[in-house]
Amino acid sequence: MSKAIDINGVRIGGGNFTVIAGPCCVESEEQILQIARCVKQSGAGLLRGGAYKGRTSPYDFQGLKEEGLELLLKAKKATGMPVVTEIVSADHLPLFEDIDVIQVGARNMQNFELLRALGRTDKPILLKRGMANTLRELLMSAEYIKSAGNNQVILCERGIRTFETYTRNTLDLSAVPALKAMTDLPVVVDPSHAAGKEFLVAPLSMAAAAAGADGIMIEVHNDPEHALCDGEQAITPEQFDEVIGKIMKIREIIG
Amino acid sequence: MSKAIDINGVRIGGGNFTVIAGPCCVESEEQILQIARCVKQSGAGLLRGGAYKGRTSPYDFQGLKEEGLELLLKAKKATGMPVVTEIVSADHLPLFEDIDVIQVGARNMQNFELLRALGRTDKPILLKRGMANTLRELLMSAEYIKSAGNNQVILCERGIRTFETYTRNTLDLSAVPALKAMTDLPVVVDPSHAAGKEFLVAPLSMAAAAAGADGIMIEVHNDPEHALCDGEQAITPEQFDEVIGKIMKIREIIG
Amino acid sequence: MSKAIDINGVRIGGGNFTVIAGPCCVESEEQILQIARCVKQSGAGLLRGGAYKGRTSPYDFQGLKEEGLELLLKAKKATGMPVVTEIVSADHLPLFEDIDVIQVGARNMQNFELLRALGRTDKPILLKRGMANTLRELLMSAEYIKSAGNNQVILCERGIRTFETYTRNTLDLSAVPALKAMTDLPVVVDPSHAAGKEFLVAPLSMAAAAAGADGIMIEVHNDPEHALCDGEQAITPEQFDEVIGKIMKIREIIG
Amino acid sequence: MSKAIDINGVRIGGGNFTVIAGPCCVESEEQILQIARCVKQSGAGLLRGGAYKGRTSPYDFQGLKEEGLELLLKAKKATGMPVVTEIVSADHLPLFEDIDVIQVGARNMQNFELLRALGRTDKPILLKRGMANTLRELLMSAEYIKSAGNNQVILCERGIRTFETYTRNTLDLSAVPALKAMTDLPVVVDPSHAAGKEFLVAPLSMAAAAAGADGIMIEVHNDPEHALCDGEQAITPEQFDEVIGKIMKIREIIG
Repeated sequence: MSKAIDINGVRIGGGNFTVIAGPCCVESEEQILQIARCVKQSGAGLLRGGAYKGRTSPYDFQGLKEEGLELLLKAKKATGMPVVTEIVSADHLPLFEDIDVIQVGARNMQNFELLRALGRTDKPILLKRGMANTLRELLMSAEYIKSAGNNQVILCERGIRTFETYTRNTLDLSAVPALKAMTDLPVVVDPSHAAGKEFLVAPLSMAAAAAGADGIMIEVHNDPEHALCDGEQAITPEQFDEVIGKIMKIREIIG
Repeated sequence: MSKAIDINGVRIGGGNFTVIAGPCCVESEEQILQIARCVKQSGAGLLRGGAYKGRTSPYDFQGLKEEGLELLLKAKKATGMPVVTEIVSADHLPLFEDIDVIQVGARNMQNFELLRALGRTDKPILLKRGMANTLRELLMSAEYIKSAGNNQVILCERGIRTFETYTRNTLDLSAVPALKAMTDLPVVVDPSHAAGKEFLVAPLSMAAAAAGADGIMIEVHNDPEHALCDGEQAITPEQFDEVIGKIMKIREIIG
Repeated sequence: MSKAIDINGVRIGGGNFTVIAGPCCVESEEQILQIARCVKQSGAGLLRGGAYKGRTSPYDFQGLKEEGLELLLKAKKATGMPVVTEIVSADHLPLFEDIDVIQVGARNMQNFELLRALGRTDKPILLKRGMANTLRELLMSAEYIKSAGNNQVILCERGIRTFETYTRNTLDLSAVPALKAMTDLPVVVDPSHAAGKEFLVAPLSMAAAAAGADGIMIEVHNDPEHALCDGEQAITPEQFDEVIGKIMKIREIIG
Repeated sequence: MSKAIDINGVRIGGGNFTVIAGPCCVESEEQILQIARCVKQSGAGLLRGGAYKGRTSPYDFQGLKEEGLELLLKAKKATGMPVVTEIVSADHLPLFEDIDVIQVGARNMQNFELLRALGRTDKPILLKRGMANTLRELLMSAEYIKSAGNNQVILCERGIRTFETYTRNTLDLSAVPALKAMTDLPVVVDPSHAAGKEFLVAPLSMAAAAAGADGIMIEVHNDPEHALCDGEQAITPEQFDEVIGKIMKIREIIG
């Protein structure tokens, strides 16, 4: 069994199943508050929301940045949920003081300078697998964080790049039992980015739970059609509520 | 919902969940009978067993061939289970008269002459996805069979080739909900070949069921250590029994 | 140095550089004769032309089949050039009696029954690398032919499937020096199928020659815009003439 | 034709063919000086040498860092060759003041914060393609640099990650003519990292030149067996001299 990491009272690993949910991007106070309340009521333990977004093109929306962090912290205060958000530069660390879990995105999985800087903090780090990285390389990147002094690393499978173009990435659920055989770090799955299509999110979420993941990270949006980022893969709070109910029952079965 | 295909009383699709199990290779009368009885008792609907094996090297064991088919048919007679086995040449079709489901292996997914020949039979065809083929190409290969007159095609996800080397192939479970959105053909999953390691088979089997597959095809061997082929990915009848029990409960939840 | 294979007086391997050229598909007598004369004049040693075409969809043009073979043989008679064409089923072997080199397409690289049948002929076999097959697997497939008694195997790199979508496949030119370190079979390169775009064919052809290939197989069409198959990757006889001139000079340099 | 970028008198692009050579890592003053003199004599225009090395494992040799930069600058002074070396953090920029070309490694191709910081400098940037990145994404990363004000970007193909394991990466030489159709930025090729085996470097270098690259970057070591990093892919000064001679002749042919 993976070891537990405590995040202000919410535990990941150690036999728990933890749901992280929220929008791809923080867009407004109203949006993040509304989504936070919904996902909390459905059983989410942590709130996610992007403030600094790494986008392929410099001309795409890059997130609300510092303002996004502030709105996320307002939602934290309003709901009591710990929050997860991505960092893209070690220089931004002072702004992340009240963030509970710092996420490293797939594109930065081998940004070793960033990993070392995060290893010198005392915050749990959610480390996403790079889209062309092997499981062994993911563990080596975790080792950059750990060897700098921070053992609170949560691994996240989010799909790898293959020849298949129907999905945005190919979710590699073998990674879950494989990583569990190699490490005691908790392993969560992000089906939203891999799927790239909302109707795939629920089946892949249940599959991730059945494969033994310690948790799941899902993009939920109150108005997917008008989302500023990745709306086509976001599910609604209603869909989220339904899938979480099923996932919890699956967890009981696999034990 | 996928349409149901009837295989001498066992149905695949149409809301059923069908378990196909058996050894990678038929090795002896004792072996196939013993495994057949075990998997039947645990709830398997169909018996699988390779007689003609396509192997990367011409110097590897190629299966018992005609004798393998005969032993498989003995097991069918003894247990009443319909049987599934792979064909590697249309010239062998006369030998497959009493075989219930004919399998097309991943390497032959685009052997269009074979597909056309199978399209002229009245047997259900289990069509495995090629290891570098897209979902669209899988459907086009099914279309070769259907356009020749045979609509009884069962699609099988068995892993694709990627850069990751920890697993033999990367099982693409997104294929299950994706194919279900594109076709009404039943979709089954073979986790054994993708995993290549027995401890991955149970979690991936449960994940496949949770993702909504119409069935699963698992390699089971009474003595994996001495199996003539792919023993490292075979699970024992005891492990099989346990995982099938859990899968059936997962099926109830996802509805 | 690779060993030489003699094809009715044209040699592949043994220090020679051999050019195979012609249309993707044989379309008409006029077409194949015209192209054959052009490519011969530019220095091509062998004429290629598809008669049996394996296509992803059963509804795409599948070639002129037996009539295509006959037209190809007319062009052989008219120009004296040995001919290369693809076989898709061992049942067609009697029709290939006067064909000089039999090609195995990428999709059939692991159609072991076909390989074995070709191993029992006395014809040179041009074996294309499967789009998801390693170099070691290519050599193992060659071994199926050789172990059945036929040592005249020509290996052909034609691109592998990767995540990149700009090109149809990714031409792996490392395969040339790598295979030469592993085997004495001649290695030729088909840049046309990998590129999928005509403007890439000339640079990749020169690159293949510079990498040490024993030959090159190029799709040439007198009227690419109206080609029945893969016109977007065909070059004109004029373009062909120019690139062959450069290639021959590159060959002198690399020695 | 690509536009020319001037690097203290050495030009990349604009019809020139530029050779960048040197060791994977700067190891000692003696080593870098000796190699620099050799490669200069053979016709290299720029000297490369790693000081900050991004390595998969935190326990592998990470380069001489600041001392490595100093030794590289000594070699620059001794030979008059402009120097290229990799940066792994924008925080190190002050140390790169006398470096002529700053390299972004494959793992940082989508480290957008680093790209933006480099876009605010006036130095030529050698941007390596990420191992799972498409050509379009490479151009988008170049756009991060350009949109911040720095147009001096040199693109570098260095191999992509595929299923093939014989080579370390699969060198995608189609990238050369493809990029030249999409952009006027110069395109160079690094065959050493893709090959991972020294005997593949010379044929792939010649192939890159034949494909139309504006230059080549080759790892050369005076004592490959005792190299601290990637010795198995380094060629000796003698091998380098021979291949450069051939490359220059190939360049004349392709014109």
